[in-house]
Amino acid sequence: MVSARSQVPPFEVMTILDEVARLRARGVGVISLCAGEPVAGAPTAVDDEAARLHVAHTTFGYTPALGIAPLREALAGHYDRWYGTDVDPSEIAVTTGSSGAFLLAFLAAFDAGDRVALARPGYPAYRNILSSLGCEVVDLDCGADVRFQPTVEQLDAEHARGPLAGLVLASPANPTGTMVTRDELAALVAWCDANGVRLVSDEIYHGVTYGDSRGTSAREFGPGPIVVSSWSKYWGMTGWRIGWLLAPPELMSAVDALAGNLALCPPAPAQFAALESFTDTSYAQCDEAVADFAEARRLLLDAEPRLGWGGSAPADGAFYYYADLGPQLEHHGTSSAYAAALLEATGVALTPGTDFDAVGGHRTVRVSFAAGTAAIREAIERIVAFQSR
Amino acid sequence: MVSARSQVPPFEVMTILDEVARLRARGVGVISLCAGEPVAGAPTAVDDEAARLHVAHTTFGYTPALGIAPLREALAGHYDRWYGTDVDPSEIAVTTGSSGAFLLAFLAAFDAGDRVALARPGYPAYRNILSSLGCEVVDLDCGADVRFQPTVEQLDAEHARGPLAGLVLASPANPTGTMVTRDELAALVAWCDANGVRLVSDEIYHGVTYGDSRGTSAREFGPGPIVVSSWSKYWGMTGWRIGWLLAPPELMSAVDALAGNLALCPPAPAQFAALESFTDTSYAQCDEAVADFAEARRLLLDAEPRLGWGGSAPADGAFYYYADLGPQLEHHGTSSAYAAALLEATGVALTPGTDFDAVGGHRTVRVSFAAGTAAIREAIERIVAFQSR
Repeated sequence: MVSARSQVPPFEVMTILDEVARLRARGVGVISLCAGEPVAGAPTAVDDEAARLHVAHTTFGYTPALGIAPLREALAGHYDRWYGTDVDPSEIAVTTGSSGAFLLAFLAAFDAGDRVALARPGYPAYRNILSSLGCEVVDLDCGADVRFQPTVEQLDAEHARGPLAGLVLASPANPTGTMVTRDELAALVAWCDANGVRLVSDEIYHGVTYGDSRGTSAREFGPGPIVVSSWSKYWGMTGWRIGWLLAPPELMSAVDALAGNLALCPPAPAQFAALESFTDTSYAQCDEAVADFAEARRLLLDAEPRLGWGGSAPADGAFYYYADLGPQLEHHGTSSAYAAALLEATGVALTPGTDFDAVGGHRTVRVSFAAGTAAIREAIERIVAFQSR
Repeated sequence: MVSARSQVPPFEVMTILDEVARLRARGVGVISLCAGEPVAGAPTAVDDEAARLHVAHTTFGYTPALGIAPLREALAGHYDRWYGTDVDPSEIAVTTGSSGAFLLAFLAAFDAGDRVALARPGYPAYRNILSSLGCEVVDLDCGADVRFQPTVEQLDAEHARGPLAGLVLASPANPTGTMVTRDELAALVAWCDANGVRLVSDEIYHGVTYGDSRGTSAREFGPGPIVVSSWSKYWGMTGWRIGWLLAPPELMSAVDALAGNLALCPPAPAQFAALESFTDTSYAQCDEAVADFAEARRLLLDAEPRLGWGGSAPADGAFYYYADLGPQLEHHGTSSAYAAALLEATGVALTPGTDFDAVGGHRTVRVSFAAGTAAIREAIERIVAFQSR
């Protein structure tokens, strides 16, 4: 009486978060580096606006399924500000986090049986949502040599084996933080357009970057790609569950109908408060948080000799340090065993790579430095002490 | 490049809400009786708590996928308070509205191709979510003679045509407000148990009732049924997007894995604030709102001779008046034409029955009296004036 399609693996991060909560309830001083949760939370003005609305006892009724009009307009302004790209508000849907956006995007673009490609390692929910909807997930084996990002050559090869309906791309990627260059993205978009493959571009980590670029949007190359993003990372609003997608006009009426039936609308308090996230002040606060992530990233990279793990690819963006455990595997066998022992002994919670890579993830861990410099500095000391016991 | 499965009809109410928003933006004094949105909004203490958390600049991170532990415990207390039924918190999942609960329940319980029965007329999202997930929707033609609720006889007949995997039941129902009796519910639960059919019992309108009972929960008869409910109706928190489901232990690990992948977690601010909804004061405030709905219902029933529509079945619960338009159909042809003309001429927004019944809904309208007595009193006058022109 349990459906076959619901037999997706649990998202291991969520299980570890439960363990973190249990340890904290017992008074253990846990440093949680397992989830991608920015320590600073929402911009001050967003919280202030939410408080004001609640104090006024605003009745938060259903909003339009695609979100309140001023927020869709503000998002269009955001695309102008960051990318210099004209996006019409009618091409924007506010969603219940990027999770809600992926569900709507996958349902609108893909039928059961469709083959959808994605990079391994990658964010496990792509694969698990697609599987639960009956799509065939096509793994692209993306190693450190291609900086964990898919290539046109891989797509050609897979498309020849059986036509692909879609490609999910993430730049910056989770768990590796690597980004495709502007030219690489242009080539991937062109390949998808030429081959009738729908690109779903996950741009949730845009703005959380450590080079010159905030990220290039697939939307800059034309209206074909579905773009997914969220307030969870750059704006630090994970638990609010608010995100968005861009879709071409021919998909938007399907997205609208699906959203009206599957979600009714995104959370209304978050929508009204999020209007305050596009001011100069809010952008400046978020940029400050990113500067702290950059410092935490630097601490981790500088600590590589002391950590004594194997190789990593320095993240271009996001707030993840993804590394092979190298010599530590001799002692612990797998990254899951390592992570469990580390959490038990030191209260430092990491995520084993098995969440992101069923093939090679038993060798790797993901360290989220979204918790900021103070947490990372302390975690490094605990890890080094743990490993030298 | 648009998926076949996304071709679900739009939820017409959402389209009318858009039109209401457009008219209001033009300054038209619209009375919106189309959505089931309680006028009073959240209990005061829930809003106060939300404001307090935001003023304190609480960082709302991801919560456990099934919701924060104290809220699941409080919900267990609610089942004890209202139903005298022991429910373990581990059998409760907090969800992103009842919408999120239905998605998880349908994915966990049913595979593509499974036959799932439901009453016509009924809430359109049941059918549209099930269709988008590849399930076969089996209509049970439930007329006024069976008070719009399915019977064991109908189920026997459909099950003989082809095995059913599920039954979706709503009591009080949308759009009719009718309820099954305790004995009828017991018989339906027993029939489902005996036939290996998973019952999904939508109890979102419990507490919004006009007789002696707040509603009987399918959970009172054993752990087998999936129960779906929400803070949207009795607690007036539609736009907050927070609800819950009860599921038997054998389904809960699937629900947990699906929730962690498809939603991550329900909105965190709503979860923490909702802890304030189970106090005597909050229950009392909600009961006051229900008393106002009862008065609005009475106004509509008393106005039946003046409205000059056809028959209705007086609602046992929910806040809907569902009626055949009777003689008005001669002038307008269909309920959609009637509703459009009424909105244009008077600013009163109703929902045509086509949202709920593809066969007979062209004759019917649903009037939501969740807007309260003042709105209903004024709407009746506008409708009577409109019809006498």
